[in-house]
Amino acid sequence: MSTRKYSSTSREQLAESLFDIAATRGLDAASVREVATGAGVSIGAVQHHFATKDDMFLFAFTHVVDRVRARIDTGNSTGTLTDRLTDALSQLLPLDDERDREARVMTAFAVRAANSDTLGSVQRDTLAAIRAELTDILRAARIAKPELRATLLLAIVDGLTLDALSSSGLYDAAQLTDALTEQIRLVIGND
Amino acid sequence: MSTRKYSSTSREQLAESLFDIAATRGLDAASVREVATGAGVSIGAVQHHFATKDDMFLFAFTHVVDRVRARIDTGNSTGTLTDRLTDALSQLLPLDDERDREARVMTAFAVRAANSDTLGSVQRDTLAAIRAELTDILRAARIAKPELRATLLLAIVDGLTLDALSSSGLYDAAQLTDALTEQIRLVIGND
Repeated sequence: MSTRKYSSTSREQLAESLFDIAATRGLDAASVREVATGAGVSIGAVQHHFATKDDMFLFAFTHVVDRVRARIDTGNSTGTLTDRLTDALSQLLPLDDERDREARVMTAFAVRAANSDTLGSVQRDTLAAIRAELTDILRAARIAKPELRATLLLAIVDGLTLDALSSSGLYDAAQLTDALTEQIRLVIGND
Repeated sequence: MSTRKYSSTSREQLAESLFDIAATRGLDAASVREVATGAGVSIGAVQHHFATKDDMFLFAFTHVVDRVRARIDTGNSTGTLTDRLTDALSQLLPLDDERDREARVMTAFAVRAANSDTLGSVQRDTLAAIRAELTDILRAARIAKPELRATLLLAIVDGLTLDALSSSGLYDAAQLTDALTEQIRLVIGND
């Protein structure tokens, strides 16, 4: 069978190789050749799964976004409003090694999306969906201006993440958690 | 004189060429060759001003950061607290063509700074300085938790900017302004 020699890898495994490169050296370094080397397969094996580098990038971005969104959706839906928002938004902050790696990858893709219609479309759908979920939670709790404040909650985690990752450790995990806690407190009006 | 043939350009002009490329095609596309072409000079002219591509990137990042920070410093210092914070923070949002271009450039450098000690150092100093200025303004106005809330104000503009630029127009300028206004209102406690 013509696909036999590629059976040792998958699109998901190649995406993991891309994430490793993007998180440590940046997305610029994630060439088809480097992704193949990282996955321990041939360039042909990558090309078997992805016709172009753009296809590989689109799959990888969608893959990481889906994974993070699935984790947001599994957030505690029976806790207090503060707990629910904290659980969901904490998934987007670089608070441990896994989330740090994901945040680096997602932020790098976000910047690339500024100049790419296909990546920009994924980013737009992702932000709109997360904002809609946050809006629903705030509206159900009768918080004023739910959509505007959902915009602020989403922007605060994206901004804290960008500021933390880009500044060689200006903020540690405890500071990021404190900042998120304060923002949620301001948005939902608890003192 | 050996420098005569390079007299038609300057480090600042080369940085502008780099900004044009970074804002429209991304920082990956800003090679020495492309910067030279954009500036209408030879590769040798770029190499005369910058020994390496990293040197060029460091100068360009510092240059755009200095320009934006100078504009923040010229903010109205006699208006209300809301006016002063709005004036300063609006400089960091992509509200017109000039700020959109700068925001694209600074965001691209921020992501690159995640994997670069030299760029990360510039980013760290920049964020720390802006946060300190915001903290001073909040503290002088006797706002509670001034440093924590300054962290939130900085993160909100960085997050709104990243979300707006990356999502193919999810937010327009009016929405960004409304979001900033609401965040300032929440942080300083005015109703």
